Amino acid sequence: MSRVYNFSAGPAVLPEEVLKEAAEEMLDYNGSGMSVMEMSHRSKVFDEIIQTAEADLRDLLKIPDNYKVLFLQGGASQQFAMIPMNLMKNRVADYIVTGQWAKKAWQEAQKYGTANKIASSEDKTFSYIPDCSDLPISPDADYVYICENNTIYGTKYKTLPNTKGKILVSDVSSCFLSEPMDIEKYGIVYGGVQKNVGPAGLVIAIIREDLITEDVLPGTPTMLTYKTHADANSLYNTPNCYGIYICGKVFKWLKKQGGLEAMKERNEKKAKVLYDYLDSSKLFKGTVEPASRSLMNVPFVTGDKELDAKFVKEAEAAGLVNLKGHRTVGGMRASIYNAMPIEGVEALVEFMKKFEKENA
Amino acid sequence: MSRVYNFSAGPAVLPEEVLKEAAEEMLDYNGSGMSVMEMSHRSKVFDEIIQTAEADLRDLLKIPDNYKVLFLQGGASQQFAMIPMNLMKNRVADYIVTGQWAKKAWQEAQKYGTANKIASSEDKTFSYIPDCSDLPISPDADYVYICENNTIYGTKYKTLPNTKGKILVSDVSSCFLSEPMDIEKYGIVYGGVQKNVGPAGLVIAIIREDLITEDVLPGTPTMLTYKTHADANSLYNTPNCYGIYICGKVFKWLKKQGGLEAMKERNEKKAKVLYDYLDSSKLFKGTVEPASRSLMNVPFVTGDKELDAKFVKEAEAAGLVNLKGHRTVGGMRASIYNAMPIEGVEALVEFMKKFEKENA
Repeated sequence: MSRVYNFSAGPAVLPEEVLKEAAEEMLDYNGSGMSVMEMSHRSKVFDEIIQTAEADLRDLLKIPDNYKVLFLQGGASQQFAMIPMNLMKNRVADYIVTGQWAKKAWQEAQKYGTANKIASSEDKTFSYIPDCSDLPISPDADYVYICENNTIYGTKYKTLPNTKGKILVSDVSSCFLSEPMDIEKYGIVYGGVQKNVGPAGLVIAIIREDLITEDVLPGTPTMLTYKTHADANSLYNTPNCYGIYICGKVFKWLKKQGGLEAMKERNEKKAKVLYDYLDSSKLFKGTVEPASRSLMNVPFVTGDKELDAKFVKEAEAAGLVNLKGHRTVGGMRASIYNAMPIEGVEALVEFMKKFEKENA
Repeated sequence: MSRVYNFSAGPAVLPEEVLKEAAEEMLDYNGSGMSVMEMSHRSKVFDEIIQTAEADLRDLLKIPDNYKVLFLQGGASQQFAMIPMNLMKNRVADYIVTGQWAKKAWQEAQKYGTANKIASSEDKTFSYIPDCSDLPISPDADYVYICENNTIYGTKYKTLPNTKGKILVSDVSSCFLSEPMDIEKYGIVYGGVQKNVGPAGLVIAIIREDLITEDVLPGTPTMLTYKTHADANSLYNTPNCYGIYICGKVFKWLKKQGGLEAMKERNEKKAKVLYDYLDSSKLFKGTVEPASRSLMNVPFVTGDKELDAKFVKEAEAAGLVNLKGHRTVGGMRASIYNAMPIEGVEALVEFMKKFEKENA
């Protein structure tokens, strides 16, 4: 067995010790005589798995008691509909469009009411986060929507928008658990887990209780009503049990690393290694405005498509994989999530230095 | 490690060799240097996983070319809404209610139009399948809906309803791949995989192409539109990749067992061991009308609640687990899906005989 350094934007690298434990427990979880994949979601043993996962997540994010934690299916894409279907009482919402995912969320919301694009960074290929200190928030907006870390473009909000008292809804898929958050500033925080937390097929939504009501838009499916899942503690129907189990292990791993304060420090240190080199390189160039740089996703280019392709190919041969950038940005992208060790980033930078020398 | 005989109704027992392979490949799938959980769903290596899974499933079920295979999230419960949202052009559908899940599907459909209950077996606790040879099919029904195997009650359709030319939609969650099917008789066949195929969090829908259109009900979310997923070969957004991978392994395992004809034979043989004993026992009694008996789920009772509880407890101590029946039926239920070896059923019957002797 030989593991690579995997810079995939998602699904993405997971902590090796989590995978090792999962492999060891595959045929017999904790003396139950069965795999977690084979357990009833209503069994005592699975109940302990999901309860422990929730408790550890609450602990990590310091989630206040008046917020529910839901383990859902359908990815962020399904949240794009669930959010307006559950929250659009006035049929008005404001969207800040800082990338492809925020844009898709904004487009989906238009099915259900007036979705205003109150700010955007599309003019410069989403390479920055706009000033959100004094936006034209709609007086009757049911919520203000953001995508907090933009996976494709490598930007992140450093301060949250001034919503002028409106509910903030945030997609944190690609920065989930990468640093502490103040949950009380949000109405809904949600993330697909497949970038920074676990395997694909699971979304975690953290929702302030007063936003969970039966008063949803007409025609909202039972499964797309937050209350359905909140009332049943995420066990209205069979959830993605194995995904919850793996996420639970990642939560334990994060606590062992020292929690989210420690992760933040570690992620800052890791990102600095790469950004410092990008700022000094004559060949490679970061594509994002420095003030908006993400700690998780780092896009960069040489400015020469052929050279970009050569880099990606040679990096792969050196065990540094999935560095090809998204087609809308081009070039390269290194996703350096929680589970990417600093040794992986150092190996990448060493390789970039060598490549720069060889291709000067 | 000591494995039990797991009679859970779902999530349920999986083939041991599938779990062993998954454990072995956990840190490095096929030389990729990463777990399947860590792979981009757009990567070449995952593409081969999903394509192979689909090809093997098509092979097993002999799925005609004019049917699409979709790997979806949200369980059968989400299909309860997706089906009317995508198929109810006239806003009318007919439901045959043979259990709790068919009933839930029928209730959900009422959100979207007129859902007629054209037959039911609720009068006798769903212990039989009604005669469906000449039902009052609605002239403008967009489809006729059935749940083909009723997990809780242990019944199965032995012949399909006469739909008088209307599209047949069938939930096959708990009999999926237990025997051959004639897919051409259906408009949609779908099943949550967590009973007979794989881990929870994945639904497979097999849909006739002409039923996949943009003409869905107003307000249908993009993610709940079959066309979204059909056009993108189930990769519109990140699917439950690990679930698809495990299902793919189960498909290979089924082919190795001789395919669905062989599975049918095996399942009939297994069920006969249990039913024959039930028919001869003076203590235990099957709860289902013999003509409607499922090969997959076998509920039985002693008629004495305390004795039932004693049986479940002692069986568990003997390594025969998850035999407690659903609260609406009471007593016991043995789910004997594809992956339950005949040795498990024989061990159960031996234990029942011993229990009968001791408690005569």
